[in-house]
Amino acid sequence: MSRWIQEGDNVDITNERKKGTFDTERLSAWIHGGTDVLKRRREILEFVKSVDDFKDPVPIEFLSREERILNNARKVVAMTDNTDQIDGSDFFGEGMYYQALTMGRDLHAMSLHYVMFIPTLQGQTDDEQLDEWLTKAISRAVVGTYAQTELGHGTNLSKLETTATYDPATEEFVLNSPTITAAKWWPGGLGKSSNYAVVVAQLYTKGECKGPHPFIVQLREDDTHLPLKGIRLGDIGPKLGINGNDNGFLLFDKVRIPRKHLLMRYAKVKPDGTYVAPAHSKLGYGTMVFVRSIMIKDQSTQLAAAATIATRYASVRRQGEITPGKGEVQILDYQTQQFRVFPQLARAFAFMAAATEIRDLYMTVTEQLTHGNTELLAELHVLSSGLKSVVSWDTAQGIEQCRLACGGHGYSQASCFPEIYGYAVGGCTYEGENLVMLLQVARFLMRAAEEVRKGTAKLADIGAYIGRTGAKSSRLTTHHHYTDAQLVEDLEHAARKQVFRAYDRLKKAQQHLNPEDAWNSVSVELAKASRWHVRVYLVKNFLHKVSLAPQDLKFVLVDVARLYAYDIITSSIGAFLEDGYMTSNQMNEIKEGIYECLAKIRPNAVSLVDSWDYDDKELKSVLGRRDGNVYPALLEWAQNSQLNKAEVLPSHTKYLGPMMKDARSKL
Amino acid sequence: MSRWIQEGDNVDITNERKKGTFDTERLSAWIHGGTDVLKRRREILEFVKSVDDFKDPVPIEFLSREERILNNARKVVAMTDNTDQIDGSDFFGEGMYYQALTMGRDLHAMSLHYVMFIPTLQGQTDDEQLDEWLTKAISRAVVGTYAQTELGHGTNLSKLETTATYDPATEEFVLNSPTITAAKWWPGGLGKSSNYAVVVAQLYTKGECKGPHPFIVQLREDDTHLPLKGIRLGDIGPKLGINGNDNGFLLFDKVRIPRKHLLMRYAKVKPDGTYVAPAHSKLGYGTMVFVRSIMIKDQSTQLAAAATIATRYASVRRQGEITPGKGEVQILDYQTQQFRVFPQLARAFAFMAAATEIRDLYMTVTEQLTHGNTELLAELHVLSSGLKSVVSWDTAQGIEQCRLACGGHGYSQASCFPEIYGYAVGGCTYEGENLVMLLQVARFLMRAAEEVRKGTAKLADIGAYIGRTGAKSSRLTTHHHYTDAQLVEDLEHAARKQVFRAYDRLKKAQQHLNPEDAWNSVSVELAKASRWHVRVYLVKNFLHKVSLAPQDLKFVLVDVARLYAYDIITSSIGAFLEDGYMTSNQMNEIKEGIYECLAKIRPNAVSLVDSWDYDDKELKSVLGRRDGNVYPALLEWAQNSQLNKAEVLPSHTKYLGPMMKDARSKL
Repeated sequence: MSRWIQEGDNVDITNERKKGTFDTERLSAWIHGGTDVLKRRREILEFVKSVDDFKDPVPIEFLSREERILNNARKVVAMTDNTDQIDGSDFFGEGMYYQALTMGRDLHAMSLHYVMFIPTLQGQTDDEQLDEWLTKAISRAVVGTYAQTELGHGTNLSKLETTATYDPATEEFVLNSPTITAAKWWPGGLGKSSNYAVVVAQLYTKGECKGPHPFIVQLREDDTHLPLKGIRLGDIGPKLGINGNDNGFLLFDKVRIPRKHLLMRYAKVKPDGTYVAPAHSKLGYGTMVFVRSIMIKDQSTQLAAAATIATRYASVRRQGEITPGKGEVQILDYQTQQFRVFPQLARAFAFMAAATEIRDLYMTVTEQLTHGNTELLAELHVLSSGLKSVVSWDTAQGIEQCRLACGGHGYSQASCFPEIYGYAVGGCTYEGENLVMLLQVARFLMRAAEEVRKGTAKLADIGAYIGRTGAKSSRLTTHHHYTDAQLVEDLEHAARKQVFRAYDRLKKAQQHLNPEDAWNSVSVELAKASRWHVRVYLVKNFLHKVSLAPQDLKFVLVDVARLYAYDIITSSIGAFLEDGYMTSNQMNEIKEGIYECLAKIRPNAVSLVDSWDYDDKELKSVLGRRDGNVYPALLEWAQNSQLNKAEVLPSHTKYLGPMMKDARSKL
Repeated sequence: MSRWIQEGDNVDITNERKKGTFDTERLSAWIHGGTDVLKRRREILEFVKSVDDFKDPVPIEFLSREERILNNARKVVAMTDNTDQIDGSDFFGEGMYYQALTMGRDLHAMSLHYVMFIPTLQGQTDDEQLDEWLTKAISRAVVGTYAQTELGHGTNLSKLETTATYDPATEEFVLNSPTITAAKWWPGGLGKSSNYAVVVAQLYTKGECKGPHPFIVQLREDDTHLPLKGIRLGDIGPKLGINGNDNGFLLFDKVRIPRKHLLMRYAKVKPDGTYVAPAHSKLGYGTMVFVRSIMIKDQSTQLAAAATIATRYASVRRQGEITPGKGEVQILDYQTQQFRVFPQLARAFAFMAAATEIRDLYMTVTEQLTHGNTELLAELHVLSSGLKSVVSWDTAQGIEQCRLACGGHGYSQASCFPEIYGYAVGGCTYEGENLVMLLQVARFLMRAAEEVRKGTAKLADIGAYIGRTGAKSSRLTTHHHYTDAQLVEDLEHAARKQVFRAYDRLKKAQQHLNPEDAWNSVSVELAKASRWHVRVYLVKNFLHKVSLAPQDLKFVLVDVARLYAYDIITSSIGAFLEDGYMTSNQMNEIKEGIYECLAKIRPNAVSLVDSWDYDDKELKSVLGRRDGNVYPALLEWAQNSQLNKAEVLPSHTKYLGPMMKDARSKL
């Protein structure tokens, strides 16, 4: 019997759990990486629940921004006071879970301190600097952020406008914001919380610009926390999400910092102003791959949360009769509801599988690099950029589908969907805007296509399909006999075709346009090729992972994986029919396959989402509660409303009341 | 020269306006229904700008919910004090514009008073009741709302749980909420503002349930505004949008109201408890069609606002070089950006055209009805339900595309996208959940298909294509020679095919399932058929409207209309290829057509969005400002942040400051 069943639970949700045909605990272990990991998750959960400083006074959606900032500051100090409770080396696992439980989806004053400030210090300082600054940062003697993006520039770093001009007379850099568009804009925790930042500025020495470089800059005084002379900064205002964070702006008016505040692991400036160029000009791909693999894990966690809420709610919500007189049915019984929600559930599984895989790949590549083997590196970098883009977009879409599937109550913040969406959809933009990322992936694909045409291609596994000839038509007979290998072949065919479609159009455009205009004129096709490349990987990886699952889990995961793949195929039918690769009968088989997957997933739906192992504390959704007792909880939740603090509001006393009284007197 | 150009404007946006090849003022008049209407719009705008009570103290995104409620109450009293400024009979035109300018996208205390409470009184009271209640409502002696939806029931009205039991001894009804799920939930203005409501409850008399009926109920005392005895109500808490409205909950504990508070135009209860059934059991379709035509206008206005913001911002944002050394380009020059934004612009035009058309159709049908002609009524009702569903979904998607196209700044509330999205996406759920609506449309389509198969079909223009045989293959040669008629034929083919695909599957399912389960088992296909039906109408109507436009506007509108149609086709390529109706060469022609439309729209993009005639007061977006001076305005906007009121926040003083100080002392 499912460990998720407890006395007093909603009867419908309990029945769903009883109906499940696999052991949720075993699937949880499979998802999270073993029973030991599950055990640790529960220890961390118990710890977090036991600490008073982690408790919110009311659900945070009822707090003002000022209150949220204050609440988060208390929690983040408590969180970092207690890092001994987790295995700090396992950020991807224990670290992310611990942070999700304590801080939720609001970010906090020290988010960038840990994700950007410390890693930058580790990567960009020379030994002497590392000693000084890393000690301060890790001990929390300073709180730092990473100030790169400006009001006028995000994507195109080379055009950042903040300047750092070296003055050999005093051995200082002078930081300046020559225009309004040079204002640093967006860095998390910059507005009010941080007192230090790594600031990226154009380095000028001996009258020459040497491009953007990182500097460590004190922003606020140690004791008073007031901004230092020449520094103007503050909060950038409310956003779609993460309003418990003080994303900030920052302007410099000729602020002097010591020469040694240039982070000098790579480039250096000597006391006399001589610039020493870095030996390696490239940024470490490794860190970027790591950050993106964290993002993919994070995104999949948000989509899974949304699918959990929608699935559980659909199992307790009864509305409408399918057969008159037989009573209202659980809305999960409507095919349209399944068609909305289950593909999101399937995506979440696929994305989780990709997140784990890319973390492992990252480790493999890191290991290879120590032996000087860089073969996989570029491809992996490309894949992680593409995954970030496809996963964040599909996640955002999927969350909204889940929300809409919950009808009116999905629109209430009680559902938590607005918070989940606001948080997750940011991933489409930060850490590389999605379309820009896809076009980077396309650079790689076009090189690969070129090499394939020339017969010189050496493609690692991820892109090997580009070089294969492939069959002329799909081997699909009926969906019951459709093998994983055939399915992957078909997807690879579609991807390859789009890669070469884009390539041929590019070549043609280059005949009458300069290379850059030609590139721009086919960029929609290029982005499409990149999406296919990533989706092939996602399906392939998921099918492979499922094929290795133990038999008592595999039988249910197979339907989830097939639904994921079929959904991709039927969303792009043209790609398979255009060149006669598939017949419409074959396509109909796949459509039938979807309906069969929906029906087969239906009885296990609640157990599948239970297996993700969300505690109510992490989910934070009245609709998605474990116990299914949604309606009393909604009523209770609403009592927290700011408007319910007084029975009669000033809006009545001052405006509506007098208006009505006046009218009554005239009746 | 464009009337939109002023001195001091951003140079890039001015150049765009100079580049425009048509007269924006003439297009504005075409869009809004003539120069007279434009003149009135500007008079209304000037009036609204002149009234102090309409001014927000700061942009409303910086206000707490309590402050927003108070601010909106002041504004709504002022708005309704000044209704003599507009032509009240023209709600669709002047009324909606006046309300948008004064109240924005936040709704207000009296939204439902005007949209639901008064129309219900007009439609459901007998003459005596009308006299009493309409007078009170129109004079604003009472503020009413419409309380139908409950915590446990929205879509399925027949299962509402609130009861109204007639007591002949006192000639009263006893209102009661027997369960928590019976709580009225969602009605706008119910929580704090209204003192009256039309409450829909199950009428019981002589021991029998007569189904849901409307009652007028006083909720709060006239003078004190305190809830009457037995009534418990309040705000339901924050939502994804419209947080300046106090959507409320309401529970009755055996509340007695006079018999005459049953709205008795149709059904009646006599003093002894005898129930008199209504002569006509159907609700007036007319009102529903009218409400939905308002929604379509409203949704198109929101999508147009989003497209305006994204287009203007993309014309002033410069990022990245296409050709190295030639300087950064306006992001509007990127094909991927055009591909994201221009289809949304085209949709907005198409939806506006549909909104006008459906309003006119509504009037025609109303006129026909007075002659007893009901032929068009059902089809029109069906069409308006379907339009509501397709338009609200495409609008929501389109707004998010526009937001994402603005990168990081789109995520800030300064862009206004979060507000626009939160407001508009609600339309997918209220006034009939989208999928439920689509399945209602499908009922009509399946009846039509049945009749066509039987040879008995009599279809009005909107659905006539279902009965036509149609060609076996598309007549498209090149997209330059593709006529409107051919294009519509092709779309009708796809729609017809899906209608009969769904129909055949339904018939097949009915062989082994009961009718309801059969219906459910093909509901995904049914919903798809409905979407096609609506999209055919949208394209046809838009092309027709454009074909009638004067020559100096038509040449630019044609590209917009084609982009809209081509986008629909290429989003469903399979529908045209599956049965060999189109070849892949023909499909490629359409894809080329899209790229050509993008390139042709590019130089007129800013002028096209200018033509919608948004004032900054209505748009409320820092990114979408008329003058294009986005960056200084962003910096200024951010100064309003609640967090910027103090230089050092309690979060530092209480938590982060002591943490750092402690660490420094140990270094």
